[in-house]
Amino acid sequence: MKVVRRIAELETAPGTGLVPTMGSLHAGHRALLAAARRESERVVMSLFVNPAQFDDASDLAAYPRDEVRDLAIAEEEGVDVVFAPDAGELYPDGFATWVEPERTGAEGEARPGHFRGVATVCLKLFNIVRPERAYFGRKDAQQVAVIRRLVRDLNVPLEIRVVPTVRDEDGLALSSRNVRLSADERERALGLPRGLQGAARAADPVAAARAVLNGLAPDYVDVVDLGDAKVLAAAVRIGSTRLIDNVPLEGEAP
Amino acid sequence: MKVVRRIAELETAPGTGLVPTMGSLHAGHRALLAAARRESERVVMSLFVNPAQFDDASDLAAYPRDEVRDLAIAEEEGVDVVFAPDAGELYPDGFATWVEPERTGAEGEARPGHFRGVATVCLKLFNIVRPERAYFGRKDAQQVAVIRRLVRDLNVPLEIRVVPTVRDEDGLALSSRNVRLSADERERALGLPRGLQGAARAADPVAAARAVLNGLAPDYVDVVDLGDAKVLAAAVRIGSTRLIDNVPLEGEAP
Repeated sequence: MKVVRRIAELETAPGTGLVPTMGSLHAGHRALLAAARRESERVVMSLFVNPAQFDDASDLAAYPRDEVRDLAIAEEEGVDVVFAPDAGELYPDGFATWVEPERTGAEGEARPGHFRGVATVCLKLFNIVRPERAYFGRKDAQQVAVIRRLVRDLNVPLEIRVVPTVRDEDGLALSSRNVRLSADERERALGLPRGLQGAARAADPVAAARAVLNGLAPDYVDVVDLGDAKVLAAAVRIGSTRLIDNVPLEGEAP
Repeated sequence: MKVVRRIAELETAPGTGLVPTMGSLHAGHRALLAAARRESERVVMSLFVNPAQFDDASDLAAYPRDEVRDLAIAEEEGVDVVFAPDAGELYPDGFATWVEPERTGAEGEARPGHFRGVATVCLKLFNIVRPERAYFGRKDAQQVAVIRRLVRDLNVPLEIRVVPTVRDEDGLALSSRNVRLSADERERALGLPRGLQGAARAADPVAAARAVLNGLAPDYVDVVDLGDAKVLAAAVRIGSTRLIDNVPLEGEAP
């Protein structure tokens, strides 16, 4: 496995699958890497905590980082190349061109500038790596919607593959931010997947989810259109940790 | 020469040079096409009056269109493929992803949204045609600066080639909008290149240009950094027609 830090040193090749990550890898990322490995001759994983997508400086500062562990996991999952640039490599002095997605739903309203940062860095990675396929987790539903639209609207020549959410045995969706939860907070966080799963079967899923998530003071409850399916999504704050999750509403295998 | 109207029907190939145009071709476009022809195995010309870059609906409505003549000129200049989509092909229903360049100078301030439209359509064309080189005229100086930054900032894998401004014998820079000038207006318009050329030699070129262009009520006089050279640029209104022009300041052959 090769670790590349400079854009100029990254080679492109046909048959490449790209898995963009911010590191702090968990079983959800492993599912993305395994899907890429199955479907691609060459797997590139990017490892970059993208400052442009953090709307909250303290969230950026607290974001967990452990490159040695991340590289070991990438190696285990059969990654060929890890692209791990520093911020100056992707945002050089004088950087002045952004990809701006419109209509980014409740998650976009809750995090001003977040999807601009996500869309910009993803387009940059697509152009640098030039993959045939790029892999994203369904847990970040609005992100999937934004990236699928970006690829269509800007005619990017690749396919977006969406991998189902991976959950712990208790049902909590895996997230790099879960490590910040205390035992008590984790117990309360389980109300998010449970509440969404129950509400998804109600006649008015959004109202039902709002009612049942009331105790978790959700940022929002929203229906997000992923293009091929709709999901019931919500964001909650457990102490100082913000968690998002979603469950299928229609037209989608669970 | 092939005329293609649908993205799905446009083939890509190595060694392609792209000349993006809005039609209404003149000798300035011929210079771009000739440069592309000299340097490329395959020349693609796009022909698309991009609604997203018109900040003024009456300017869009009045923009001259003559596809039969444009196709004949493209054929004369040895173009291999003309890509001439309609607006729905490039901006389908639900289009919601824009390329937003920051710091677009006095021209950007005078035309809100203009460079967003230019940057978005150019990135789309780059992704659809996938050229090795794309050709732009130096007459649109701020456009050159925006596109060069876009290519760098978003890591687009192509080279931008900039072709010197072509002028009529009297010195007026060629523009598709020149056909709207009456004989009297055209005489007054000559004050723009003459004023800029005189001012470029002054100790304070911007102040000198403002003074000499005073009678033409310029939108602005500005120095634009093209990356490899700086130019003295201005925009004036002659009757209802807006004209821009620029001359080299330093580091550049005339």
